[in-house]
Amino acid sequence: MTNANAAPASEPAIPNPRADIAQLDALERTLYCHRYAIDEIASLGPVIDPAKATAERGEAVALLEQERVEALCAPEVGLLLDRIEQNPELMGQTRLAQARVIRRDRASLIDVPAEEQAAFTRLTTEANDVWRRAKAANDWASFEPYLDRIVEAMRHMAQAKNAEKDPYDVWLDEFEHGTSRAFYDPFFAQVKDCVVPLLADCMASRHKPDHKVMDGKFDVERQWALAGDLMRLEGVDEDALWLGRTEHPFTGGPGVGFVLIASHVYEDNVLSNVFSMLHEGGHTLYEQNVDPAYAMTSLKGGTSMGMHEAQSRFFENIVGRSEAFAGPLLEVLQRRFPGQLGRVTPHQLYLAENCAAPCLIRCDADELTYPLHILIRYELEQMLFSGEAKAADIPALWAAKHKEYLGLDVPDDAHGALQDTHWSDGSLGYFPTYALGSAFGAQLKAAMVAGGMDFDAVCASGDLAPIREWLRTNIWHWGRAKDSDELMLAACGEPFSPAYYTDYLTQKFSSLYGLQ
Amino acid sequence: MTNANAAPASEPAIPNPRADIAQLDALERTLYCHRYAIDEIASLGPVIDPAKATAERGEAVALLEQERVEALCAPEVGLLLDRIEQNPELMGQTRLAQARVIRRDRASLIDVPAEEQAAFTRLTTEANDVWRRAKAANDWASFEPYLDRIVEAMRHMAQAKNAEKDPYDVWLDEFEHGTSRAFYDPFFAQVKDCVVPLLADCMASRHKPDHKVMDGKFDVERQWALAGDLMRLEGVDEDALWLGRTEHPFTGGPGVGFVLIASHVYEDNVLSNVFSMLHEGGHTLYEQNVDPAYAMTSLKGGTSMGMHEAQSRFFENIVGRSEAFAGPLLEVLQRRFPGQLGRVTPHQLYLAENCAAPCLIRCDADELTYPLHILIRYELEQMLFSGEAKAADIPALWAAKHKEYLGLDVPDDAHGALQDTHWSDGSLGYFPTYALGSAFGAQLKAAMVAGGMDFDAVCASGDLAPIREWLRTNIWHWGRAKDSDELMLAACGEPFSPAYYTDYLTQKFSSLYGLQ
Repeated sequence: MTNANAAPASEPAIPNPRADIAQLDALERTLYCHRYAIDEIASLGPVIDPAKATAERGEAVALLEQERVEALCAPEVGLLLDRIEQNPELMGQTRLAQARVIRRDRASLIDVPAEEQAAFTRLTTEANDVWRRAKAANDWASFEPYLDRIVEAMRHMAQAKNAEKDPYDVWLDEFEHGTSRAFYDPFFAQVKDCVVPLLADCMASRHKPDHKVMDGKFDVERQWALAGDLMRLEGVDEDALWLGRTEHPFTGGPGVGFVLIASHVYEDNVLSNVFSMLHEGGHTLYEQNVDPAYAMTSLKGGTSMGMHEAQSRFFENIVGRSEAFAGPLLEVLQRRFPGQLGRVTPHQLYLAENCAAPCLIRCDADELTYPLHILIRYELEQMLFSGEAKAADIPALWAAKHKEYLGLDVPDDAHGALQDTHWSDGSLGYFPTYALGSAFGAQLKAAMVAGGMDFDAVCASGDLAPIREWLRTNIWHWGRAKDSDELMLAACGEPFSPAYYTDYLTQKFSSLYGLQ
Repeated sequence: MTNANAAPASEPAIPNPRADIAQLDALERTLYCHRYAIDEIASLGPVIDPAKATAERGEAVALLEQERVEALCAPEVGLLLDRIEQNPELMGQTRLAQARVIRRDRASLIDVPAEEQAAFTRLTTEANDVWRRAKAANDWASFEPYLDRIVEAMRHMAQAKNAEKDPYDVWLDEFEHGTSRAFYDPFFAQVKDCVVPLLADCMASRHKPDHKVMDGKFDVERQWALAGDLMRLEGVDEDALWLGRTEHPFTGGPGVGFVLIASHVYEDNVLSNVFSMLHEGGHTLYEQNVDPAYAMTSLKGGTSMGMHEAQSRFFENIVGRSEAFAGPLLEVLQRRFPGQLGRVTPHQLYLAENCAAPCLIRCDADELTYPLHILIRYELEQMLFSGEAKAADIPALWAAKHKEYLGLDVPDDAHGALQDTHWSDGSLGYFPTYALGSAFGAQLKAAMVAGGMDFDAVCASGDLAPIREWLRTNIWHWGRAKDSDELMLAACGEPFSPAYYTDYLTQKFSSLYGLQ
């Protein structure tokens, strides 16, 4: 407890809020231009760069990252943040939020030497390039040493960040503030307890949806035109979007006015295109709808990975795979493929979108089996971090867990542990946020309905503006100024609870598979 | 004169070359990552960015540019360069060349405040965006105030750089070291004295080449495939090239292993595609073939704009529009357009490429009239800098000079003063380097021939390796380590002389138009 009347131990600095604000603004400008450059170069690199560009790109990004870290970790920044937080009444809410977010970004970096950070950026740039070729060639062996090096480097950095904490917990917290295995273990247990028996019941049911009506080959260039249609249907601002082509879909956001989506289309899987685009479109809506006043500051962008995935998986699944939205979605599909899809009904499309069948590829998984893919990765990442497994053990473990949870035989690593980009990027600890985001989304939908929205009617109308406006006001608008738990509490009137997610899955798939 | 035995006025620093080298390397790393980011973001921006991206991109580039300038202009860098140049024997040729180039880059910036530089970057980012829309809408009025502001800002910066010198001379020197109006005036006089009467004779001749065989509509997507073929024919390394689509073709080079070409194709003008690509391919060859040891240092890239244009216009014209190269070029064209071009002969193609007809668009100009387009811009830029003309006067002056030099009526500003991107980029003083580069190229060809190369046989073979190797060894390889005049002297055994250019034009067009 502080005695306000006690004499200070040393002479207090005379507050000069104007100078502090100028210093904060200058710091934000430095951070902004480095973030912008890193985001654009690192996002576009794997999409557009020719083969020989990798080394110079990796070095440029590593150096920019090193400068960003140095700017953030400079001792005078610590003093500045102290002064700002000690004089809240002079600063205003936005600047206090900036200081809070900058302090957290700084805390996650300050104990790792800048050279070590830069070396890690170099390693992951190279590893990502190796992974791309390894996936194409189904060659786990070439990627294997990189995974071991990445885990080792992440373990070492985690020790530097917090020697008291389990290294994997450090990274879970990094991707989703406030989480750890102690948070995720019961969450995944609850999800598993729901999904595993539900999936078994679905598989045993005689009443099964099928996707026959959506099978067949769909012209690739028309599918790219469809990708644009889907962005318009979803309500993405096309004047602030660049759409490119890549193997592994992603969204990057250098600016509020500049979001990059890179996606893929497969001739024999038009639904993969539909749900990839709706997913990346959800990320895009979040990035584009942050308060414009936060542009070019540390408050720009999504507040956490879980909350980001909540938006993408909301538009992919809760809207995109709903029965109500099948009508507007089908219209868009029929306009591009009138011959092939002219006789399909919305209900048939809805069934085709929601066949719960175990499959090898996470990105193509249905909503029900999806969290099992995440669970497998969560378990494997723990084994890598604890040392229980090395990269060399992963293919066999991958096969065993896919057999156990999904009943599948994994034919090769391209359809196995090489399918995802995340490990090559150094994003171990990221996967769990996908499942968490799905669970956030189910609760957000429940809150919309509880607040009086006729959710199905909005979806059926094909004009998602009311849903976007609800999310904009409650989530997107706030950027990084509020944390996930704060946003969930304010938006839903109660803290996060996984029961909304398991209830949602149970109701939806019981109905689809005639289990009720 | 220095007395070597005199005691120094102050205690001399003890030389520590290892520390100096480390400091130089650190500076180069900082400069590299900023250059890389600025080049990639600023090059790609106008090609890929959506409409709303401009403001944030402009701010990011301006801030990165400001940091680059600050790094270069820091007082300790001046001291470092002094120490390096005072101890040449400890440094090696490469580091001395780095110091020389850095000193020059620094000198061109040090007297302009960093904020003024950044404001200029912001202005030109916005102006370029306005120009793109103004050109599309044929709307000079919207661009006009930007041009006045750009000239004013450039005049002000020139004053800061060198108050003794004429501001336009400052910028001429900036784009081509060692040049000024005193250099260009006699050069252009010599070119004009050759070209104007030669053009008149050509126009009066009854013997005229025509381009009928190359007229018609050529499928746009096949033209893009042709663009790739042309890069292979020219010998560009496709593993270090990204090819994109834009309105105004350009080449950017973030890395030795990463060159960006953005180009356009017009359905009704396949030759425009051919020569745009050969031109940008020449820039690309230069960037890709700099000594790999110079990658990520200030020695990377072309030594001057004139020398860069020498390479691009060499491959566009001296190779590309030669009779000998018409055979291999036609083969490539016929492979993509067998129906339309199957019966064309190499000689017909050669004639079609070389019709000397005054035209409104510089980029589509034939080799003979081309320097007159440059001369017009050179004269107008002088008027803008001297204050003799404001932006509002440009359309009328543009029309008058096109009438005078080319006998043309200018129908609108889109086909007039809005056609080029350069003024919106703040590149006033750049245009003359195109004519100078053409003249460099003619002299380089003469040197190849004088050195024993059978130039026509090389072109006719379709394998340009001997030409590339000659240019690689004599020019490209050196990056910025040698200046244009040094390179020309070493490569040609004599200083630059415009007579090679006027001789080349006279011979080529006299023969084409039967004037001999």
